[in-house]
Amino acid sequence: MHEHLIKPIAIIKTDFTDKFGIPRQSGRAPSLLGRIIFEKEFKNGEGLKCIEEFSHLWLIFGFSEAIKDSFSPTVRPPRLGGNKRVGVFASRSPFRPNSLGLSSVKLEKIEKTEDGVVLIVSGADLLDGTPIYDIKPYLPFTDCHTGARGGYADNTADYKLDVVISDEFSKLLGEKLTPLIECLADDPRPSYQEDGREYGMSFSDFEIKFTVSGKTLTVLSVIKKQFDKNSITN
Amino acid sequence: MHEHLIKPIAIIKTDFTDKFGIPRQSGRAPSLLGRIIFEKEFKNGEGLKCIEEFSHLWLIFGFSEAIKDSFSPTVRPPRLGGNKRVGVFASRSPFRPNSLGLSSVKLEKIEKTEDGVVLIVSGADLLDGTPIYDIKPYLPFTDCHTGARGGYADNTADYKLDVVISDEFSKLLGEKLTPLIECLADDPRPSYQEDGREYGMSFSDFEIKFTVSGKTLTVLSVIKKQFDKNSITN
Repeated sequence: MHEHLIKPIAIIKTDFTDKFGIPRQSGRAPSLLGRIIFEKEFKNGEGLKCIEEFSHLWLIFGFSEAIKDSFSPTVRPPRLGGNKRVGVFASRSPFRPNSLGLSSVKLEKIEKTEDGVVLIVSGADLLDGTPIYDIKPYLPFTDCHTGARGGYADNTADYKLDVVISDEFSKLLGEKLTPLIECLADDPRPSYQEDGREYGMSFSDFEIKFTVSGKTLTVLSVIKKQFDKNSITN
Repeated sequence: MHEHLIKPIAIIKTDFTDKFGIPRQSGRAPSLLGRIIFEKEFKNGEGLKCIEEFSHLWLIFGFSEAIKDSFSPTVRPPRLGGNKRVGVFASRSPFRPNSLGLSSVKLEKIEKTEDGVVLIVSGADLLDGTPIYDIKPYLPFTDCHTGARGGYADNTADYKLDVVISDEFSKLLGEKLTPLIECLADDPRPSYQEDGREYGMSFSDFEIKFTVSGKTLTVLSVIKKQFDKNSITN
């Protein structure tokens, strides 16, 4: 009944080439930029007329990397220690029927490029290349419920790690330093892991290694990735 | 690329058997109740574990009645007088690529019924029988942007009509009186229509006729519908 075929209207380009390290929710890393590149039929920007009047947008996207063979009606949110199970409809887990995700992002800029009209947004917690199925304006008078109860998620909303990073690594990261620190402060670890382990994550052109002890995350190394030789043409 | 087949997880039962009269946005008629009835595989309620911790939910649904043969990248929002065109991605119009809708509703009650676990929600601006593709908890710390600019929609956020209705009609409507008045106050007319015309709308088991003059909407008649003979079995 009502099976429905949906097609991406756009993809988003972000600094996350790997799932590990993506913030738990949109807005956790407000300096993270993403570029929304439209599919051919929407590249002329007609569908975006007046969008500059809005400060925030909704993205309905596909959790394209979160497809599992078998579906579980319950999930274990990392913020609950990874042990307690809650229903998938009581969570924002990527492993859900129809694999649809919802994020609010801030509209920073509209650019006319060779690749058509592009939206630059911030606060996007999305994997590089994520398919976007819809973009809607954020309407504060109907979308913002200031008194809403956020359930178990409320208890951990303010949770943040302190991030320790050397001047040398900071300099190497340049403009990627601030968004990376925001992502690390959000604690990318699966919560059921013990302290002391070394973790690696990709971010933009960098490979980051870090460890966590108590509430402090220490960056162990930042390595600029070499470009893949296959991508060099002559 | 990334075409994706989605299947309803549920349908919602509401008082709107007809598109005309549905509020413009969720929450405009806070007393409107809807019943979310799940598809077979979700009826046992496992996917809803802990959902009672949240006061509000997101519904991603299908604008199942808003399919047009040809797609237009711009739409004419009724609140702008029906003359000004804006891009479809700068509007919440039902006529959009992928026909996906987004509404936040208030979770009122969870009922165990013969038809499985049912969610009773309020503020739902949805047609009766609308397919629901996903339900997510509303997370105030990430979903509520108090300072967001709502563009052209901000200017009309407080627009409301005064509704005049007789005691007799009010009594006949019973518990449907309050939600109906909320819907009528939201001005169901397409905005480019002139004053003085008579309009009809279906609401629950009633046929309503009304007219508008200036900022005042007057209910002309309320008729309780006869049940369709075909639905009576013996």
